[in-house]
Amino acid sequence: MKTSTAPQLLALDWGTSSLRAFLMQTGKVIETRQSSHGIQHLPVPGVAGFEQAFAGIAGDWLQYFPHLPVVASGMLGSAQGWREAPYVRCPASPQSLAAQGVRVASGLGPEILIAPGVLFDEFDQTPDLLPDVMRGEEIQIAGALAQNPEWADRSCFLLPGTHSKWVQVNDGRIVRFSSFLTGELFAVLRQHSILGRLMPESDAPAQPDSSAFERGLTTGYGSAPGEFSHQIFAARTLGLTGRLPHVSLVDYLSGLLIGHELVSGLAGMDQSTQCPLIMVGAPALCERYAFSLKYLGRPVSDVLDNTAPAGLWNFAGAAGLLPAPTPGENNE
Amino acid sequence: MKTSTAPQLLALDWGTSSLRAFLMQTGKVIETRQSSHGIQHLPVPGVAGFEQAFAGIAGDWLQYFPHLPVVASGMLGSAQGWREAPYVRCPASPQSLAAQGVRVASGLGPEILIAPGVLFDEFDQTPDLLPDVMRGEEIQIAGALAQNPEWADRSCFLLPGTHSKWVQVNDGRIVRFSSFLTGELFAVLRQHSILGRLMPESDAPAQPDSSAFERGLTTGYGSAPGEFSHQIFAARTLGLTGRLPHVSLVDYLSGLLIGHELVSGLAGMDQSTQCPLIMVGAPALCERYAFSLKYLGRPVSDVLDNTAPAGLWNFAGAAGLLPAPTPGENNE
Repeated sequence: MKTSTAPQLLALDWGTSSLRAFLMQTGKVIETRQSSHGIQHLPVPGVAGFEQAFAGIAGDWLQYFPHLPVVASGMLGSAQGWREAPYVRCPASPQSLAAQGVRVASGLGPEILIAPGVLFDEFDQTPDLLPDVMRGEEIQIAGALAQNPEWADRSCFLLPGTHSKWVQVNDGRIVRFSSFLTGELFAVLRQHSILGRLMPESDAPAQPDSSAFERGLTTGYGSAPGEFSHQIFAARTLGLTGRLPHVSLVDYLSGLLIGHELVSGLAGMDQSTQCPLIMVGAPALCERYAFSLKYLGRPVSDVLDNTAPAGLWNFAGAAGLLPAPTPGENNE
Repeated sequence: MKTSTAPQLLALDWGTSSLRAFLMQTGKVIETRQSSHGIQHLPVPGVAGFEQAFAGIAGDWLQYFPHLPVVASGMLGSAQGWREAPYVRCPASPQSLAAQGVRVASGLGPEILIAPGVLFDEFDQTPDLLPDVMRGEEIQIAGALAQNPEWADRSCFLLPGTHSKWVQVNDGRIVRFSSFLTGELFAVLRQHSILGRLMPESDAPAQPDSSAFERGLTTGYGSAPGEFSHQIFAARTLGLTGRLPHVSLVDYLSGLLIGHELVSGLAGMDQSTQCPLIMVGAPALCERYAFSLKYLGRPVSDVLDNTAPAGLWNFAGAAGLLPAPTPGENNE
């Protein structure tokens, strides 16, 4: 392997249900691997499971490059992970994340530096602001900011998902954020509540009913306080009364839940027109949210796909694990 | 058996998970039986299952009194029941319920007259008002009104449960109502979401933490539009940050969900001080709701336990199945 392509970092995005490994050089991903060994799906329980999963995805890389620095983000650092990396409090910067990373012996030579999660907690001063936590999203945001330094001064991030995050960034730091359990609510209501009864069981990719989705979106976005547990019943009654075909009820429910998230998420963020709203996440889900925001007259400024590798590179740099950039090298 | 105690009605409250049978005379219950043969738990599938369950709970009664009229309410009349009794539209009165009852051969002599459910549907005129359905609660309300005629002119009913109902009554008729899936949300979030992870698995009757409940109640009642899926995450983060002991998180979540229901339910009902708010339901659950309403400065006027027998008596009377009352007899 030529020196010019020698990797400088092994970066791990290690979540609950999957593990992704990135071999990186000068800020770029040169090789990617993925496994299903998320922290809840290890090959064997306990520390040996983490070691086996790590050796399985990156063992040969470390045989070639035994001194490669290794960093990781995500649920690996949770109380259920390999080693707990306690939360950093807001305001959280790349520097505070790097300073509070936690090392764990990997079983393969290099230690792994695990990024901490972030805690927002002003509950004692302002009980209306509920405590909130993230783990993994802070690295995705660091990646987005490293790639787009013009957003560091003031920006809002929306990372949709099982637990969507709405994040306010000021002066390059995460100053506050809110989680919304939209994706998890959608899944449990569909699989375990009466609302799933009229919905087809198949997860086959049917053509979504955009008008049913928009109807739910408008209803949720226009909801009054406390209406959630009433409005979701319409995902049954609109079917019972023939207003929506049963195949469309799942789109209605999706729109309703996203509408609820958007009205509250937008209200909690910086409302200034100088504050861009940026989405980061899986393209299909981002597309659904971006469509919704545009439909409601609040279009997003930008949509980014996976920024975790860039964020892990940034984290490794702040932790002093990377060589100083050579002048002229693209080492953002 | 003496003529003076000869029953005049066999009344069935036949729900999803249980079946209750009441032998009645002059409006009073003289004997009660209960079985676990709700419509989802029949001894065998199909019509034979309904016949067996009915014979099991009331066969000997009908051997003694083969000409006893039989009425039923609840999910027995749903599409998944013995025979579907289509919904009556609001405004729904005892007369319209009786006129649209549906008969089914019982396999034991008398037919069973099944009460219809009620549909609220002004969606075509006012899409903000979502369609809603009830099945069984209309009979409980008819019973409460029969026992308390002074409420018929104007009253609000709250029937808490898996699908709580808030019901506005004017001129003896159900004019509108809203369902809230509070109980079902609580169950699925506890059993199937991340929020249950920190909660003890046991359902053993621990001493509830009333201060955790009140904290959730206040937060939910004071929520802004769309905050539901954000606020429920606090049933995890208040545990993670040590604000609430793990055993109290279930009370916090209960308070939060009830607070959400109350702010919306109250807003939809007649706000006049001349309109009493009456609760009907299981005593322990009613007590939790009544406490909450009092805590929030909106005390209920009255709390009733099971009014289904009185409602079924009323339904049978309106359907012409009962003898004309003898003067002086307590035949309310």
